[in-house]
Amino acid sequence: MSNHDSTSLLAKIKEPADVRNLSMAELEILGQELRETIIDQVAAHGGHLAPSLGVIELTMALFNSFNIGPDKLVWDVGHQAYAHKLLTGRADRFHTLRQKDGISGFPRPEESEYDHFGVGHSSTSISAALGMAMARDLKGDDNEVIAVIGDGSLTAGIAFEGLNQAGALGRKMVVVLNDNEMSISKNVGALSQFLSRKMTNPFLQRLKTDVEGLLGGIPKIGDDLAGYAKRSSDSLKSFFTPGILFEAFHFTYVGPIDGHNTAQMVKVFDEIKKLDKPALVHVLTKKGKGYEPAESDPTHFHGVGKFIPETGLARKFSGSGLPSYTSIFGSTLCNLAKKDDKIFAITAAMPEGTGTECFRKNYPDRFVDVGICEQHAVTFAAGLATQGYKPAVAIYSTFMQRAYDQIVHDVCLQNLNVNLFLDRGGLVGEDGATHHGAFDLSFLRHIPNLVVMAPKDEAELARMMATAFDHEGPTAIRYPRGTGVGANVSSNPRKIPLGKGEIVHEGDDAVIITLGSRVYPAVEAAMELEKEGLNVAVFNTRFVKPLPKAQLLELAAKYDNILLVEENALAGGFGSAVLEMLNEEDALTNHKIKRLGLPDEFIEHGTQKELRHLVGIDMAGIKKAAKALCNK
Amino acid sequence: MSNHDSTSLLAKIKEPADVRNLSMAELEILGQELRETIIDQVAAHGGHLAPSLGVIELTMALFNSFNIGPDKLVWDVGHQAYAHKLLTGRADRFHTLRQKDGISGFPRPEESEYDHFGVGHSSTSISAALGMAMARDLKGDDNEVIAVIGDGSLTAGIAFEGLNQAGALGRKMVVVLNDNEMSISKNVGALSQFLSRKMTNPFLQRLKTDVEGLLGGIPKIGDDLAGYAKRSSDSLKSFFTPGILFEAFHFTYVGPIDGHNTAQMVKVFDEIKKLDKPALVHVLTKKGKGYEPAESDPTHFHGVGKFIPETGLARKFSGSGLPSYTSIFGSTLCNLAKKDDKIFAITAAMPEGTGTECFRKNYPDRFVDVGICEQHAVTFAAGLATQGYKPAVAIYSTFMQRAYDQIVHDVCLQNLNVNLFLDRGGLVGEDGATHHGAFDLSFLRHIPNLVVMAPKDEAELARMMATAFDHEGPTAIRYPRGTGVGANVSSNPRKIPLGKGEIVHEGDDAVIITLGSRVYPAVEAAMELEKEGLNVAVFNTRFVKPLPKAQLLELAAKYDNILLVEENALAGGFGSAVLEMLNEEDALTNHKIKRLGLPDEFIEHGTQKELRHLVGIDMAGIKKAAKALCNK
Repeated sequence: MSNHDSTSLLAKIKEPADVRNLSMAELEILGQELRETIIDQVAAHGGHLAPSLGVIELTMALFNSFNIGPDKLVWDVGHQAYAHKLLTGRADRFHTLRQKDGISGFPRPEESEYDHFGVGHSSTSISAALGMAMARDLKGDDNEVIAVIGDGSLTAGIAFEGLNQAGALGRKMVVVLNDNEMSISKNVGALSQFLSRKMTNPFLQRLKTDVEGLLGGIPKIGDDLAGYAKRSSDSLKSFFTPGILFEAFHFTYVGPIDGHNTAQMVKVFDEIKKLDKPALVHVLTKKGKGYEPAESDPTHFHGVGKFIPETGLARKFSGSGLPSYTSIFGSTLCNLAKKDDKIFAITAAMPEGTGTECFRKNYPDRFVDVGICEQHAVTFAAGLATQGYKPAVAIYSTFMQRAYDQIVHDVCLQNLNVNLFLDRGGLVGEDGATHHGAFDLSFLRHIPNLVVMAPKDEAELARMMATAFDHEGPTAIRYPRGTGVGANVSSNPRKIPLGKGEIVHEGDDAVIITLGSRVYPAVEAAMELEKEGLNVAVFNTRFVKPLPKAQLLELAAKYDNILLVEENALAGGFGSAVLEMLNEEDALTNHKIKRLGLPDEFIEHGTQKELRHLVGIDMAGIKKAAKALCNK
Repeated sequence: MSNHDSTSLLAKIKEPADVRNLSMAELEILGQELRETIIDQVAAHGGHLAPSLGVIELTMALFNSFNIGPDKLVWDVGHQAYAHKLLTGRADRFHTLRQKDGISGFPRPEESEYDHFGVGHSSTSISAALGMAMARDLKGDDNEVIAVIGDGSLTAGIAFEGLNQAGALGRKMVVVLNDNEMSISKNVGALSQFLSRKMTNPFLQRLKTDVEGLLGGIPKIGDDLAGYAKRSSDSLKSFFTPGILFEAFHFTYVGPIDGHNTAQMVKVFDEIKKLDKPALVHVLTKKGKGYEPAESDPTHFHGVGKFIPETGLARKFSGSGLPSYTSIFGSTLCNLAKKDDKIFAITAAMPEGTGTECFRKNYPDRFVDVGICEQHAVTFAAGLATQGYKPAVAIYSTFMQRAYDQIVHDVCLQNLNVNLFLDRGGLVGEDGATHHGAFDLSFLRHIPNLVVMAPKDEAELARMMATAFDHEGPTAIRYPRGTGVGANVSSNPRKIPLGKGEIVHEGDDAVIITLGSRVYPAVEAAMELEKEGLNVAVFNTRFVKPLPKAQLLELAAKYDNILLVEENALAGGFGSAVLEMLNEEDALTNHKIKRLGLPDEFIEHGTQKELRHLVGIDMAGIKKAAKALCNK
């Protein structure tokens, strides 16, 4: 009944080809086994449940119809690929999913020859698949190339870019549109409303009448054009089917078909293979399919912690019980917006994930979910800021990478009051290499005009938020995934003077200079060191930009030994900024300076605690480095 | 008859309102004056000619119909805004266009209250305008918001993101689609083919027959689906008009209309204003309109140097006559591709600008112009690389900013053999702040697995290219706008060992460590200093990543005085990388180190020579800094 049972069908699937020979009846049993295995695993360890449950039949149909291996399969985002993992020789390692040294939560070519493209961020699949199709044609091969993309992912600009070019190049490829009417939350955008108008026969019957009406109203020069536009618009609207849109991009469109009917999908895929041009197969699926709690609350069960499989209720865990940074951000944003009607909140398809859901409820007029459109989010914010608003753009650090140009060109160059909130800055844990917010300090601090901050705890996050909205110019605050230390958050947080840090621990032998998530561990390390007779001060710079220059120069004058600690890439990050400044001010000479941070490699998955220990930026790592610096 | 003539109509236009009162006859005269003024100015100093000539009537129609000022106008890219500049109080300064301390070649809010959004990179206008429309509604104002976007710019993902959300939010705004069937070169993508199918009456007549045919063929369960798809596709195709696409995004569509008929456009805009929802006005224009040489070669006259107005022929200038880095890149790419059939070239709407035009001619099968789609370009390249190809992605440094996430997530995380070529790295000159490649070393060098190089001259560019294609992993080469020094380029360039630099000048008193465009000026400075008795060595690192660590440590052991020079932001750039490494290796202490590079601010426009002097990285600046470092 599960993958642990060697008599199960799943246990016999060693490679994709094994799925090709199964009968429809066997596929139905296999589907049950996949579903139970995935539910059991995610219940025990957490993971992306609802997306993976939604595509079990689709995965089986793809594996049954196509020759996965020679045929290339690109999953968009990849959080729906658990069934794919189970069918590609990883069933026996599936219990290690998302755990340190275990298999990744996303497709990774290093992990399996059947993971044809590494994914994690959304909307890359069409572009990547088109590259593979192009390569196939150049080599004269005849394999298939398939991209599976959700309707949510289709809202991102790069998906449109890929679609537009795939249609123009006309290469044989299959795009499967996995339409569940959701990204993580409910989808937004004109396109999603449009996709939901499914083609029905009564609709087609209406077509004829509408066309005749339209033909009666062809505009003549001198007509009232707006009036004509209105009339033709009303008529034309009823023409629109999802098909007509994709046909406009030169795709052959088939659908919508039932994404939980394996036999029907196999039949369609078998037919589609006969085409020699781009085709789009529109399948309708239900997120969380087959598991009632996930079907009724797919947003909660998109990515979820451990739960009791029988009920779907979260397992009690020995966590801190503290509110997350995300929720502190959300409640503080609401507090500040109460007194400042220029504050506006923007999220990119993640109202829950970024804590802006409460803002949406309280200030619906000043809230927009832009969909998976980080670029647009930032430029839209820039437009608002030109008119005196103070937009808060809340996007995970790793996804903000997609808006780098917009931050440079649309926000900072114009010195606009756009405030960026980068949740999940630093190591995020189980989501791994594609999702760590490892680079934000490095890709932000070289942009002129931008103020860059990182809070040591919840109270400082609130104070930095007050600082950001008060500052006339662009700001960025990055804060970690998870909970803080339980600091008391003021409902009326005081601003912090720009570029002003603070001594958080006294000591004469050395100084640890740090900020953000590393301040408390540094203080703990200092307290441990005191027991061993080493007195190390800790300074919280709060700002990466502007650095608290005068204070840092005072510290450099007082201390010979300086330890710089950050939860960011060492290359170009915080410690690098301090080195630059000290060198600029001729304050480097005769110092012993050591930097701790993320090494120049992509960090794999594991718990945040494991990973911080691995790279040596936890309390133990800081303590050890401080001792070494002082030759103790 | 030009702006120098105080009796001209143009001379009387002090603000946009002055255009509102003009008769159609006066607008025709004004159009002539604008055209002549723009041609004269660009002929004398260079600039963006064809785009601006194409929208003279459109600009006048917008200024005549709308109340520009309270009504917000966002030009996409902004290289077409010369008429806008002339009509907004800048006619008397127009002769300073693109010159140091003169007016910018792009709309800039700092320059005029009528420049409502700063632009330079493409496709931001819909997002920005939507932000302005949202702000207007929140404030309860009733001004209009207009975005003018070219059909080329519409291919970029962010434009689609903006369109998709504007339709969903339903705010009153006007998008003017300036359809000239070009970006800088001829447009690509399915959408552009689609737009060119203009609506005609015979077309509408055909509609009825087609619908009837389609209705006869509604698919039944069990039908041959691919066959149905083929039939319905053939029928449906004839339905597509540009209108139907934009209506799918909930825009009211009007068009296409003649973009050189001012009266007709004014009439349409007057009507459009009555709508209370998003509207798209599709205008057809001709790039270079009214100037025969530009009409016949709009790509050449997109952005052009000085020319003789009577003929359009380039003025002879006292330049070096050397080939540009762009052309060296192009010819070397062709050379290398002759011997390596895995090399593939990708450009983002700039085959001429990036020097890949010759590659396109010689290897059309291995070339793709993706349109203004930098994100897709990089991920498409990643897809090709997974199948054993070695794509060369040639994009200007400033535009590569838009693909930062794809470089991190799709290329470097998978360690794919994608080779990035960043033309226009460093200061670009007259295009100014939006176009300088000021940040590439900073935003690239912290990405794991990426090799980052910058050549000192043409021969080294060719050698680095050979190195890049030979290296199994991602690489980036950045090189400057303009010509090199005339170095002899081998048709069979030798590879350079990774992370291997070279002494290019000997000396005992100090060492200048640099790379790329600054190597020759550093050597010149060293030669000048020799005359004054100061012997300064010059070391070319070639690589920002991996740095030539062993060589640099040898230099640090030998020299107390080190000058680090780069044409990149000082924050997080090359010098910063050297500081990090020296500190890591305990080799910083007791050195006097000075870094030269771009300060932490956006650099304005001017010639490259002027700007390099301004920031102190030309020969004189390097010489001065070296002397100061040695206390001479």
